Amino acid sequence: MKAPIDFYFDFSSPYGYLAAQKIEALAARHGRTVKWRPMLLGAAFKATGGAPLPQIPLKGDYAKRDFARSARFHGVPFRIPEPFPVSTVAACRAFYSLADEKQQVALAKALYRAYFVDNVNVGEPAQVLKVAASAGCAVDLESQAVKDKTRAEVEAALAKGVFGSPYVVVDAEPFWGIDRFDQVERWLERPF
Amino acid sequence: MKAPIDFYFDFSSPYGYLAAQKIEALAARHGRTVKWRPMLLGAAFKATGGAPLPQIPLKGDYAKRDFARSARFHGVPFRIPEPFPVSTVAACRAFYSLADEKQQVALAKALYRAYFVDNVNVGEPAQVLKVAASAGCAVDLESQAVKDKTRAEVEAALAKGVFGSPYVVVDAEPFWGIDRFDQVERWLERPF
Repeated sequence: MKAPIDFYFDFSSPYGYLAAQKIEALAARHGRTVKWRPMLLGAAFKATGGAPLPQIPLKGDYAKRDFARSARFHGVPFRIPEPFPVSTVAACRAFYSLADEKQQVALAKALYRAYFVDNVNVGEPAQVLKVAASAGCAVDLESQAVKDKTRAEVEAALAKGVFGSPYVVVDAEPFWGIDRFDQVERWLERPF
Repeated sequence: MKAPIDFYFDFSSPYGYLAAQKIEALAARHGRTVKWRPMLLGAAFKATGGAPLPQIPLKGDYAKRDFARSARFHGVPFRIPEPFPVSTVAACRAFYSLADEKQQVALAKALYRAYFVDNVNVGEPAQVLKVAASAGCAVDLESQAVKDKTRAEVEAALAKGVFGSPYVVVDAEPFWGIDRFDQVERWLERPF
């Protein structure tokens, strides 16, 4: 039994959203499953000194163009939501409040679709609760246990060196960005 | 006659080096030529607040691994030179001191090979002169005209929004990174 692929992402990351549409088929082609691991890009930025792309001169304008073009390239429906980016603490807590992995994945997909297709502000806890209810997931954003679990997961991701979204780990080999999925694919065939 | 592809790069950029091995065949497949345009990443970092990858926590360690893996992925000989990165002002001036475009390209390839294959420190003007001589290029690093020309080219690149290396422009559409060459290829077939 081969190990699952670790899939780290932030719910406010356009490239994470695109990757989420591709990762399962990619893994399945190589007899793998996917372990979905939402994290908080804001926490990673504290470590790297990074900032959300739209705030960066020159790069920000390019990024907006590249988000939309990359979505078309990958054949994925997409719009730049408003506001963008948003805090994804509530989304992350909702995910980690679920014990069932299938429910977690269903919620993650629903949250991404809500934000990047339907322009629902998933930065707002009330909207996260609505999306979760529509997806049939009974989530908890408030309990200390969920807050602690979320914090622990985010810290574990940082401790593993995760600094961006998406960030995929295959048998300890890290790949940052959906634009490394070609390398992930070849690595799954045979490490090179 | 279709317009040439603008290929911006920094002589100290591993991804620029990899791109330089691929760009001409890519362009030729679509009846295009390539206009090589070295720039100074340091000047771009002043605009974006960026820094050389090795200096960035987490991302720096990943980048070193990714440079080498990406080179293997693309089948290109590569080593991380020491020191890395280096100032590429002298290399840039050498390039722009040449009037003949074929000589410019020959020099660019020779400088990249010297740095990323043979570990020659092309940050040193003396080494740039040696590489140029070996490539049969009579370069000038010192005249005010060459300094002015180089500064003007770098400023023109920044004015066009070039913030990274490689940075390719096809008919006004910008693509950052060798990991956008798949999109460049499709764009050359038909803009999407």
